[in-house]
Amino acid sequence: MKNASTTVAKLVEVALRRWSMIEAGDRILLGASGGKDSTTLALDLAAKRRWWPVSFELAALHVATDVGTRPELGPIRKLHEDAGIEWIELEVPVIGRLKAGEKMNCYWCSTQRRTELIRHALANGYNKIALGHHLDDIVETLVMNMLHKAEISTMPPVVRYVKYPLSVIRPLALVEERQIVACALERGFGAFTCTCGYDGASRRREVRAKLAALTEGSSKLKRNLFDSMSKVNVEYLTGPVPPEGEAGV
Amino acid sequence: MKNASTTVAKLVEVALRRWSMIEAGDRILLGASGGKDSTTLALDLAAKRRWWPVSFELAALHVATDVGTRPELGPIRKLHEDAGIEWIELEVPVIGRLKAGEKMNCYWCSTQRRTELIRHALANGYNKIALGHHLDDIVETLVMNMLHKAEISTMPPVVRYVKYPLSVIRPLALVEERQIVACALERGFGAFTCTCGYDGASRRREVRAKLAALTEGSSKLKRNLFDSMSKVNVEYLTGPVPPEGEAGV
Repeated sequence: MKNASTTVAKLVEVALRRWSMIEAGDRILLGASGGKDSTTLALDLAAKRRWWPVSFELAALHVATDVGTRPELGPIRKLHEDAGIEWIELEVPVIGRLKAGEKMNCYWCSTQRRTELIRHALANGYNKIALGHHLDDIVETLVMNMLHKAEISTMPPVVRYVKYPLSVIRPLALVEERQIVACALERGFGAFTCTCGYDGASRRREVRAKLAALTEGSSKLKRNLFDSMSKVNVEYLTGPVPPEGEAGV
Repeated sequence: MKNASTTVAKLVEVALRRWSMIEAGDRILLGASGGKDSTTLALDLAAKRRWWPVSFELAALHVATDVGTRPELGPIRKLHEDAGIEWIELEVPVIGRLKAGEKMNCYWCSTQRRTELIRHALANGYNKIALGHHLDDIVETLVMNMLHKAEISTMPPVVRYVKYPLSVIRPLALVEERQIVACALERGFGAFTCTCGYDGASRRREVRAKLAALTEGSSKLKRNLFDSMSKVNVEYLTGPVPPEGEAGV
């Protein structure tokens, strides 16, 4: 294995162990956009299946939509199948599902695609959904939630659904985007990114630029932001907001 | 009372109530730098003494040091005394207290001045120390701690010392710096700021610029960052880092 792929492999291993992401007999459904993130994740997990201490199954689900230009997925599909990962494709009319008067946006699209992943997982006996979000996505969401939702939260590495016998795992949580780009270049698959241009995407672009200003492009400072989420010192914060009328004199 | 002073008065009132900062019979010692922040706080608390539901005492301690140029404090002292606040001055050789080989820095200076405040409070029966840190200071510290200490924490509105029968309160926690500047201009007292130029100050300046980029100068986004500290969604963070060797398979 080459340099960048080795780095990704090690960071994914640390994440899988740290958050106990894989248990024996897991049936994992990957959300496969066809882009660099989920493809990198797919190929790394496929490699890990060969030596990981417990056995698990892996399939990739691509949700094709009526949003944006449709990418040519032939080579990506072949990469998955060559690695022994079943490639499943579903068609979802994201725009077609809008009710009269509703406007298309980033949140609607991702919710529709997520719903399809959950449905397929439940109907076909998968107990985990793996998503290709990386460290930059997670730190951007933290900053976005603080700035725009006034809340300290992010997309966590592991989420257990309460309503379904299903968890979401994000094995790339410790991998920076630049490390994934290097890995994709090294393995020779191009990067296809969401090109829809709806509003949520532009807000994320804006936060991405702000984050770069905050960290001066430094990986150390970006990782400090990530690590800060594991060290919340509630004694040194502002406490909960008291309910109306209950504050003391 | 004029516009800016009214705004400050209201925000201080909300903070005093929200964090129960003042209890009956409190003897409060103000850390008075002579600058716009602590002077604004002093004058506002002096005004509140006249109508606040419970009675409390107030004195201002200025710690003069051998760092930087010494400001002309006559007019500031007079403002305090005219408002009925006792003005106390102590001399502390901050540089003189350095041991051989130690270098002067921002942290050392503020620790020395804080120590003097605590000593004076304990020796003279004060049970609270009031500091002039405002919302911008608190949000800057949050961002600085996340970026450089990899920790989510700040200077909280209230800190109860474990070692001493003493609390620190920051009644300007909800007031933005621009609102204090407006108040100081309105009341006609100049702003004297720390001019020492040591390293801690420059890091704070750098974080201040980054924060401005993050919020685009928007008070709403800055207040969202502040409010986010009261809404820590631990379920949607990354969890604690497991001790070495204890992570699962």
